[in-house]
Amino acid sequence: MTDESAPAGSGLSRRGLLGLAGAGVVGAGIGFAADRAVQNATSVASGAAASYPFFGEHQAGIVTPAQDRLHFAAFDVSDISVAELQELLSDWTYAANRMASGQGAGGFGAVDGPYDSPPDDTGEALDLPPAGLTITFGFGPSLFDERFGLAAKRPAALIDLPHFPGDMLDAAYVGGDLCIQACSDDPQVAVHAIRNLSRIAFGRASLRWSQLGFGRTSSTSRAQATPRNLFGFKDGTANLKSEDTAAVDESVWVAASDEPAWMAGGSYLVSRKIRMTIETWDRTSLREQETLVGRTKGEGAPLSGGTEFTEPDFTKAGRGDAPLIDPNSHVRLAHPTENNGAAMLRRGYNFVDGNDELGRLNAGLFFISFQRDPREQFVPVQLNLARNDGLNEYLRHVGSGIFAVPPGAKEGRPIGATLFG
Amino acid sequence: MTDESAPAGSGLSRRGLLGLAGAGVVGAGIGFAADRAVQNATSVASGAAASYPFFGEHQAGIVTPAQDRLHFAAFDVSDISVAELQELLSDWTYAANRMASGQGAGGFGAVDGPYDSPPDDTGEALDLPPAGLTITFGFGPSLFDERFGLAAKRPAALIDLPHFPGDMLDAAYVGGDLCIQACSDDPQVAVHAIRNLSRIAFGRASLRWSQLGFGRTSSTSRAQATPRNLFGFKDGTANLKSEDTAAVDESVWVAASDEPAWMAGGSYLVSRKIRMTIETWDRTSLREQETLVGRTKGEGAPLSGGTEFTEPDFTKAGRGDAPLIDPNSHVRLAHPTENNGAAMLRRGYNFVDGNDELGRLNAGLFFISFQRDPREQFVPVQLNLARNDGLNEYLRHVGSGIFAVPPGAKEGRPIGATLFG
Repeated sequence: MTDESAPAGSGLSRRGLLGLAGAGVVGAGIGFAADRAVQNATSVASGAAASYPFFGEHQAGIVTPAQDRLHFAAFDVSDISVAELQELLSDWTYAANRMASGQGAGGFGAVDGPYDSPPDDTGEALDLPPAGLTITFGFGPSLFDERFGLAAKRPAALIDLPHFPGDMLDAAYVGGDLCIQACSDDPQVAVHAIRNLSRIAFGRASLRWSQLGFGRTSSTSRAQATPRNLFGFKDGTANLKSEDTAAVDESVWVAASDEPAWMAGGSYLVSRKIRMTIETWDRTSLREQETLVGRTKGEGAPLSGGTEFTEPDFTKAGRGDAPLIDPNSHVRLAHPTENNGAAMLRRGYNFVDGNDELGRLNAGLFFISFQRDPREQFVPVQLNLARNDGLNEYLRHVGSGIFAVPPGAKEGRPIGATLFG
Repeated sequence: MTDESAPAGSGLSRRGLLGLAGAGVVGAGIGFAADRAVQNATSVASGAAASYPFFGEHQAGIVTPAQDRLHFAAFDVSDISVAELQELLSDWTYAANRMASGQGAGGFGAVDGPYDSPPDDTGEALDLPPAGLTITFGFGPSLFDERFGLAAKRPAALIDLPHFPGDMLDAAYVGGDLCIQACSDDPQVAVHAIRNLSRIAFGRASLRWSQLGFGRTSSTSRAQATPRNLFGFKDGTANLKSEDTAAVDESVWVAASDEPAWMAGGSYLVSRKIRMTIETWDRTSLREQETLVGRTKGEGAPLSGGTEFTEPDFTKAGRGDAPLIDPNSHVRLAHPTENNGAAMLRRGYNFVDGNDELGRLNAGLFFISFQRDPREQFVPVQLNLARNDGLNEYLRHVGSGIFAVPPGAKEGRPIGATLFG
C-alpha cells in the first residue's frame, strides 16, 4: 500500500475522492474523517430490510440465498500502477461495506452538502433499504498479464476458457480485468451499487460490459422455491444448497491446501451470457420440451417418476425399453453422476435486453457458477453439454467470463489484500 | 367480427391458436371449451398476490398505483385484414384477462398437455402470483393509415408529435401501430405477459421495440412514497394522484363529449425514452444539481422552502433579490401554473440497458404520461422544457411514441370494440 491509499473502512483514497469530482474538477472542502468507518453490519434477514455483512471469511453473494435481481459488471483497468490498483480495491471495499449496510457509497450524502462538491453518493437509493445487497469482486485472467507484475501469482485454475462447440461469443460480452456482481431484491439498489463503484473507479478502471438480470434461476438454499428459467422450466432443483456445508466446502471454496495460498477461502466464478431462441422453443411440443429437459414442465419431476426432488433414475426404461430420461437430456448431461461427481453452485439470472432487429426478444440466461476449480467442474460439464445437449438448438452462448474471487475482506484487509500481501 | 373470431373471454381465435404452434406447425388436438371464460377478477391488493381486474370502464395500468416493474412493447401490424386485426385484439383481450388474474395465457398449461402441442402458456410465471399485473393497450397514429380503413376514425388528439428542440431520436425506439404496457411488481410476470402476447400475435403483428424498466419514477397514489429517478432526485412529487378524481377526470380521461366518441373513457399515452448522461451529472456540485432541479436532493423540498409537498413559491427571492427557485429550473418549467394549468399523469420508469461502447451506463428515464389531449398537455410542457430546461445538458431524448388508449374491455367487448363498432 502506498501513502496515498487508505486502509479499508477508513474512507476513500485521495484518488477515489478525485474520481467523484471527475477529471480536472477538484471538489472543494472534501475530506473524510477516519471515524466514518462503518461498523461491521449484522446480518438482518427480514424482507426488504435484509442485509448481509460485507466483511467475512468468504465474500458474500456466493452462498448467500440468491436475491431476485442482478447487476453484473466487468471492468478494464486503466494504465495505472499496481499501488493504484490496490488503492482502487481499497476504495471499492470501503464503499461496498457502506452500501451493504444501507449507507451511501461515501460519507457525504445528498442532504448536508458540501454544496460546492458533487455528492459522494448518487442518491437514487437514498430512501431504500439494502434489500439484501451483496457485492462480490473478482479478478480476470488478464489482470495477471505483465502490467501489474502479477503473472507469477495467477492461479492455475484461472484458465482461459476453451472454445466450446457452438460458441458464438460476441467480444462485447467477454472477459474483463475485474468483475463486480451486485445482487439485491431491489434492482434500483443493485444498479446504484454498480453505478457508484464505477464512479469511484473513474480514471482507474472503466466499464467493459454489464448485465442486468431478474428472477434468479437457481435456488441456493432449501428455504427457496425453485425458480423458472425462460424456457418455463424449474431450474436448479439439483443445485448445491448452502445448507450442505460439506458439499460447499468440497465444491465451492478454495481450500487452504490448494494453490495459490492467496486464494484460500475464495472461489472461481464463470459467467456465460446464453441467449435463448424462445420464439422457436415456444413452438415445440410439450413432449419435445420435456424430453429435451428430462423433467416435467409443471412439477419439475424427473421423467423417471416421482416429484421435483426425487433423484432421477437414468436407467429406468419405459415403452420399448427406451430409457424414460433421454440420454441426451439436459438433466442427465448436467448431472454430477454423469460428470465424475462434478457439482457447481449455480447462481444465474434471467435476462431480457429488449428485442433484436427481427422483433425477437433478446432474452435468455445469464449463467453464473461458483466452483473450487473450473478445470474439474465448469469445463467438463460444459463440454459434455456443448457436444450432446439437445437444448443447444435453442441456445446461443454469446458472452463468457472467468474470474478468481478472492476471500472476503475485513477491517484493515481490503479485497485482494492476500494477492498483494 | 368474422366467423373466425371469438368473443372476448371465450378463448383464442383459430388464428391465435395457430400462432401458438407457429407457422406451418399445427398443433393436434387443440380446442378451447367456451366454458374456460375467465370470471372478472376481483381486485385483491396484498403484496405479491395483488391483482387488478382487466375488465372495466377504463383500462387498468393508468390510475392503478404504479407497480415497480415495466415491460413496454410496440408492435407493427403485419399485412392482415381489419377483421384479422379485430381478431388479434380479441385474442389479446382473452389472454390479458387471464394473465391479470394469475392464470396462464391460454387454457392449456404445462401440466396437463396435450403433449403433442406446444403449451398455450410459456410457463415461466407458472408458480408466480400476478403481483399487481396490469396490461394496457394502445393504438399508434400509423394504425389509422390506409391499410385498415380507419383513417376517418383517427382522433385529432392522436397527433404526430412535433420535433422538439434537442431531440436525438433513434428510429429503433420510435412509433408503432400498437403498444402494450405491462406493469407488475415482479419483472418475470411483466416479461411473461409481453412474451405471451407477442407469441399470440405471431403472423399478425411483430415486436418493433420494447423496454424494461424498474423503480417507478412517479407515485400515482398518495399511499406511495415518492420514488427517485437516476439523477438521485425524488420524481413525481407534484404528479396527479389517482385519489384526486376530479383532476383525473379533467386531465386523464377522454370525456363522452370529446371527439371521437369511440375514445370516451380512454386516454392518450406518450412515451419518451430519455437517456441521462449520468457520469457527467455525477460530477456536478450538489448546488448545481439542486439549482437545475429546483428542489433539495435529500428531502425533495422546493428551494423556496418547506418540505416535499409544500407548494413551490416561484416569486420568493433570496440573496440579491434573485428568486430562490431558478426561472429555468425543471420544477418551474414543468409546473402546471407555468403551463396554463396543464397536468399529466406521469407513470415512467428508470431503465439501465447495460452500457455503451465507451463504458458509460446506458441509463435514464422511460417517460410515460397519460393525458386527455396531448396537444394541450404533453406538447406545450415538453416544448417549454426542451427550450429552457437546464437539465437538457444531461438528457437525450432517443425514443418517442404516442398512442390512443381506448376505453376498457368487458365480457363480450374486447379492446378496441368501440373503434370497430
